[in-house]
Amino acid sequence: MTSGTLHVVGVGPGDPELLTLKAVRVLAAAPVVAYCAKRGAPGHARGIAAGHFRADAEEMRLDYPLTTELPVPDPAYGAALARFYTESARRLAARLDAGQDVALLCEGDPLLYGSSIRLIERLGGHRIVLVPGVTGMSGAWSAAGTPMVRGDGVLAILPGTLPEDALAARLEGCDAAVILKLGRNLPKVRAALARAGRAASAVYVERGTMAGERIMPFAALNGTRAPYFSLVLVPAA
Amino acid sequence: MTSGTLHVVGVGPGDPELLTLKAVRVLAAAPVVAYCAKRGAPGHARGIAAGHFRADAEEMRLDYPLTTELPVPDPAYGAALARFYTESARRLAARLDAGQDVALLCEGDPLLYGSSIRLIERLGGHRIVLVPGVTGMSGAWSAAGTPMVRGDGVLAILPGTLPEDALAARLEGCDAAVILKLGRNLPKVRAALARAGRAASAVYVERGTMAGERIMPFAALNGTRAPYFSLVLVPAA
Repeated sequence: MTSGTLHVVGVGPGDPELLTLKAVRVLAAAPVVAYCAKRGAPGHARGIAAGHFRADAEEMRLDYPLTTELPVPDPAYGAALARFYTESARRLAARLDAGQDVALLCEGDPLLYGSSIRLIERLGGHRIVLVPGVTGMSGAWSAAGTPMVRGDGVLAILPGTLPEDALAARLEGCDAAVILKLGRNLPKVRAALARAGRAASAVYVERGTMAGERIMPFAALNGTRAPYFSLVLVPAA
Repeated sequence: MTSGTLHVVGVGPGDPELLTLKAVRVLAAAPVVAYCAKRGAPGHARGIAAGHFRADAEEMRLDYPLTTELPVPDPAYGAALARFYTESARRLAARLDAGQDVALLCEGDPLLYGSSIRLIERLGGHRIVLVPGVTGMSGAWSAAGTPMVRGDGVLAILPGTLPEDALAARLEGCDAAVILKLGRNLPKVRAALARAGRAASAVYVERGTMAGERIMPFAALNGTRAPYFSLVLVPAA
């Protein structure tokens, strides 16, 4: 028996119209559609792409471990996540080994900070086809109408989880930046932007291309926490 | 009379299937489709998207100035380009002012190093809608199957036009990188990668997702020049 193909499908930043034609074609043919989701939630990637599933598609939910009791930097959280990825990869491999094709959905683009990277790493030896997607960053800067970088400019993609010193130093070493993973890091990100002299031009985007989209100068953003679908754009001068 | 809307449409990295549904919808409605092209060439963005133009769409070619006599760093080249963007924006504005909607095609994503940035800057006051696209980078790392960056990693987008010292320093300050604009900068990029200790893991991608796609370890690439549609991926360790 021929083993199946895993199509890893980027579904874009949130607006279902930002799916690619290739993603739509792959989904229209996929007998099994897998996606990560938080327990109790319908799954964000699923919500973007569900209009294109086969009527008889079998859905495979990959439920993230519950994390409410553990702060994110806790090593026990990392271990729980690793078990989740290993077990999820085993479930995917079982279908592929049985000859079924599987489409694995990913928000944005599969190979940029995606959970899918952790799954792909555990599926060596299987046939994998990657379908790139529009990134959350592209969705955000298009929604905000913020040209990021021209000519010989350097663009840095920075997680807000970095220490403040590292964030400030990297902001000083680039022409434009995107800061991801804001969450509880927002006060630190604010301090780093101020130190690097970039706070005035920064733009805050929440839920870019999605319902509830919110765009404002970063300087006008109050508070100490930002929701999951948020980022800061720091355009080149 | 109501003035028209300029839709700035990212057409993705090269594979026509990587157009988004939104791009297809906008093109199916656009009475005028504009695109930059080198003189004598059919236009790369046009080639990706032409299957979706209205049968009666009027095409507006924006011909880049001839540059064969001038080396790129020549100030006369910059002046010729600035005149080109100003004249092209004037042609676009004339259609918008006459009430026509125009779709302006861009390779990859419109707001990341695109010529469209130069045109948008000159069209203040007009209604502009941005349609994000899959970037050339995403196309390349998906074609190569190269996961770029996980967790708290920093990704730097670096133009090969930077001086060797700056390239090496920025490679040392990030976890993963993409180096664009190789061209005649290839020997300098090679030296910077070696200095930063990143040459062994780097991947060269030429014409990613397009006919003639070529992917190889960077270390196996000989020569002193790379063609236009090429880049180097430096994945996180």
